[in-house]
Amino acid sequence: MPGLDEVRARLRSFVEERDWDQFHSPKNLAASVSIEAGELLEQFQWTDPQPEHVRADPAWQARIEDEVADVALLTLLLSERLGIPLEDAMLRKLAKNAQRYPAAEFKGSARKAPR
Amino acid sequence: MPGLDEVRARLRSFVEERDWDQFHSPKNLAASVSIEAGELLEQFQWTDPQPEHVRADPAWQARIEDEVADVALLTLLLSERLGIPLEDAMLRKLAKNAQRYPAAEFKGSARKAPR
Amino acid sequence: MPGLDEVRARLRSFVEERDWDQFHSPKNLAASVSIEAGELLEQFQWTDPQPEHVRADPAWQARIEDEVADVALLTLLLSERLGIPLEDAMLRKLAKNAQRYPAAEFKGSARKAPR
Amino acid sequence: MPGLDEVRARLRSFVEERDWDQFHSPKNLAASVSIEAGELLEQFQWTDPQPEHVRADPAWQARIEDEVADVALLTLLLSERLGIPLEDAMLRKLAKNAQRYPAAEFKGSARKAPR
Repeated sequence: MPGLDEVRARLRSFVEERDWDQFHSPKNLAASVSIEAGELLEQFQWTDPQPEHVRADPAWQARIEDEVADVALLTLLLSERLGIPLEDAMLRKLAKNAQRYPAAEFKGSARKAPR
Repeated sequence: MPGLDEVRARLRSFVEERDWDQFHSPKNLAASVSIEAGELLEQFQWTDPQPEHVRADPAWQARIEDEVADVALLTLLLSERLGIPLEDAMLRKLAKNAQRYPAAEFKGSARKAPR
Repeated sequence: MPGLDEVRARLRSFVEERDWDQFHSPKNLAASVSIEAGELLEQFQWTDPQPEHVRADPAWQARIEDEVADVALLTLLLSERLGIPLEDAMLRKLAKNAQRYPAAEFKGSARKAPR
Repeated sequence: MPGLDEVRARLRSFVEERDWDQFHSPKNLAASVSIEAGELLEQFQWTDPQPEHVRADPAWQARIEDEVADVALLTLLLSERLGIPLEDAMLRKLAKNAQRYPAAEFKGSARKAPR
């Protein structure tokens, strides 16, 4: 599979070729992540299927893949715009979450940790 | 920088150690992407700053990094749950967008292409 | 119960007393509706309770009431800003939906009508 | 203008005629509010217009009215489902916000009050 760096390179060309940087303020990109996240959620609006159930319906799976990709592309674009090294930030946040939710204490529990 | 595969491996351990798979239906993960996207957008609720303006405020930049990472982690988790190869899906969606928005026609324009 | 007109009057005073009109562009208000909708959804992030189950937990019910009110207040504020008569718009949209989803055809079905 | 009670009555008939109560768990309705809020925000994705600018474009204004109405209808539906008296809840939340954001202290300021 191609790495995220290849996606970064192609995304940069895509934006440059269309001269779209002018629209990509951090706020506009954050709003776009939210809009696309809503379209992704729409795929599950009235139903809560098991993964196997989704994968048994290739058209549904394909629509979800498209929406997931949109969220990911816009999140990556925002990261690039703000100089955020996305993979590093993900690992750092995961380490924070591991501290906030100790496995021994939160095993099998969906409750929120206090802020 | 670590690759996305390292993030995948650590994310899998994190979830397994807490026995949280049971909460991670595709719908719950899609809802969580949306919730986190809202928290990200909240960082820009009443303002539309240039990237330099954000980066000049390290606490603000750090909060945004955390929110961006949350969106990305949950999007990756949903992809894993549905067997979506995220980097591939991103490249495919980018290729679709390139067809839908020909550079010659949409250069410098923020209008939507017809569906 | 007070009518929506009383809410409108108090909302207008609230905003005027704080001189907050300057922040309330339609986009900022639409973004705020989305942010608050995310906070509302967070109340149901990992669970799908029956209404009775929520109402049996007064603290949970109260948090949801607060989030529902935030979404409604911001939606009303956006309507006022754009001169949208909200109750009329709701009735018009309901009539449109009734046409798009004929009862005979969509009874008991959660599928989407074609656009 | 019709009152919110008329909207309530028509909304109830609309749902009953289609036997859609079965899909309207609080979570599904909260997710739907979020989805519709995303569609509303999409109307301002790459632009931050003045209200007059929107109103000068009747097709745009009409699309926004539809999306605002969708958010409001789903918020009202969720309120009804949970026995929340929406107008009361809005007034109560406004009173809370007035305490949290004293006019003297927050006049002209968009900063957040501490939790």
